[in-house]
Amino acid sequence: MRAAIFNGPRSITLGERPDPTIQSPTDAIVRVVLACVCGSDLWFYRGETPKPAGPIGHEFIGVIEDVGTEVNGLTKGDFVVAPFVFGDGTCPHCLAGWPTNCTSGGSWSNGDIDGGQGEAVRVPFADATLVRVPGSGHSDETLRSLATLCDVMCTGQHAAMSANVQPGNVVAVVGDGAVGLSAILASSRLGASRIFALSRNPQRQAIARQFGATDILTERGDEAIAKVTELTYGIGVDAALECVGTGESMDTAFGVARPGSLVGMVGAPHGVTVPMRTVMVRNVGLRGGVSPARRYIPELMADVLEGRINPGIVFDYETNLDGLAGAYEAMDERRATKSLLKVSSL
Amino acid sequence: MRAAIFNGPRSITLGERPDPTIQSPTDAIVRVVLACVCGSDLWFYRGETPKPAGPIGHEFIGVIEDVGTEVNGLTKGDFVVAPFVFGDGTCPHCLAGWPTNCTSGGSWSNGDIDGGQGEAVRVPFADATLVRVPGSGHSDETLRSLATLCDVMCTGQHAAMSANVQPGNVVAVVGDGAVGLSAILASSRLGASRIFALSRNPQRQAIARQFGATDILTERGDEAIAKVTELTYGIGVDAALECVGTGESMDTAFGVARPGSLVGMVGAPHGVTVPMRTVMVRNVGLRGGVSPARRYIPELMADVLEGRINPGIVFDYETNLDGLAGAYEAMDERRATKSLLKVSSL
Repeated sequence: MRAAIFNGPRSITLGERPDPTIQSPTDAIVRVVLACVCGSDLWFYRGETPKPAGPIGHEFIGVIEDVGTEVNGLTKGDFVVAPFVFGDGTCPHCLAGWPTNCTSGGSWSNGDIDGGQGEAVRVPFADATLVRVPGSGHSDETLRSLATLCDVMCTGQHAAMSANVQPGNVVAVVGDGAVGLSAILASSRLGASRIFALSRNPQRQAIARQFGATDILTERGDEAIAKVTELTYGIGVDAALECVGTGESMDTAFGVARPGSLVGMVGAPHGVTVPMRTVMVRNVGLRGGVSPARRYIPELMADVLEGRINPGIVFDYETNLDGLAGAYEAMDERRATKSLLKVSSL
Repeated sequence: MRAAIFNGPRSITLGERPDPTIQSPTDAIVRVVLACVCGSDLWFYRGETPKPAGPIGHEFIGVIEDVGTEVNGLTKGDFVVAPFVFGDGTCPHCLAGWPTNCTSGGSWSNGDIDGGQGEAVRVPFADATLVRVPGSGHSDETLRSLATLCDVMCTGQHAAMSANVQPGNVVAVVGDGAVGLSAILASSRLGASRIFALSRNPQRQAIARQFGATDILTERGDEAIAKVTELTYGIGVDAALECVGTGESMDTAFGVARPGSLVGMVGAPHGVTVPMRTVMVRNVGLRGGVSPARRYIPELMADVLEGRINPGIVFDYETNLDGLAGAYEAMDERRATKSLLKVSSL
């Protein structure tokens, strides 16, 4: 099959990989319909985190082509969404709702596991990992929104859930990438009444508004903290969502959070230190991390299918497997918020 | 009146301070019955944190001698418990349950505010700050337990509440000081089914057992993490309570916490860095800080008065105002877990 191959920093090519086959009775083979490039794919692309040469990609939706003898809930022809990690569904961490810490689980494009940016993927623990999409004849718009459930929308959701966003809350979202935008949508969906979006990019500001941001703030750092403090009458926000992962963004999140609130963190931390005095004196907590996407997919999928949310508008670059390198370049050069790869037809 | 006076590091004397009088219509004057020395008093005693010369102490229970014209819920002769900070009860932070961040509040022995280690205290915002003790003829044992509600028992409670201890949980408590011991009692009270107490001190181990610890672990650091991991079948604990405030204790708490759980922090952090990789990869969160004691006092008081908990056994040194210096020395030299000052009769 054809699949994206990482050769080294800034070198991504379309290559050949063996057609995946059932290796364990709990496996399924998924023919990929849509794949996406994630902001975190840029880490190895830019050489910021090491990754061996080989397959890449961890976001895909597609159609089941084959299932092992112990797969019970899925069958050939089912249309499915894959979360960005797989898990067995039965270990203590899976049972507690943390499939990303599954003792038998793993991530795509890791070792002998296929990447999502290719024509097909062998999916371990298919019953526990994949979520079937009901219905048929889904629109292109719906497919794009379903593709966000692999990672970015569930990660935005995790930021909001980690910060315990409640109906009527005032929320600040630090970061206007695809995850930050999704966190705005998640907060809005959870009933936040006022959402401050920190963004300087006109296109992203427009999406932020569509997703429910009530205030766009162009300030950064201490100026952003001062602005949010002013707009909240000196109180601070009920929930601060950190969707970047830098020291400045974390300081901003802690700086705007009211006493007793939580910073919901999903930006992978690079050079971040937690301001312990704020934790101690203001009781601002920190929660979040890798999203347990599998847990959130069913409820978000229902909202997508019933047209209540349309997270797919975060995709502003679209190509196919042949255009793969360009999809990475566009995100690397910040011309695109998030790139979509149309791999095959539904 | 006679009151403890801090002259500088390791110099505490019994001196004279003006008798407190009503200055604002919401004030009350409390004659102190019992006062306590807090572990955090050792910071200025040892010269580790700066403090101007003057009154000291922030834990006291006593009897109301006088009230201002706008005090409605309390009257002369009422027996009351004072939390370790005062607040107005009406600002946004008080209303949200965080009186320690009251915009008009403050702490004892600060500026012109009396300290708790003396014969009497002027209490601002008396209605919102003080909690009346119902009944009469309380035993000496009950009085000692009520004295823990000023700070240490409420701080232990806050560790458990911050880590979201639930019935049936497996909990680890890092720290066997008076706060750590109280956190064990709080966890037990909240229904934890297994409580690991990290302690090497035989006397404290005995109190830990009385408070509900099911396992006493003498290991520290990585060895403690390995032991807890082994005892939890590789899973980790549902809640880790950090009651010390050092880098090692924080690392231990994060090291034993299972994916998706919370570290409840009440040890004032000194040289602490949060292990961001554990936050990110294992979704272990951090919550806690200065306890909103006023919020917890009513429910804990009910349990004390009905004999369900006996937190007062953390006091293992008892004296009066004349023996004040010795009370500090005993804690400084680790001969005492916590010192009690009998100031007057109920």
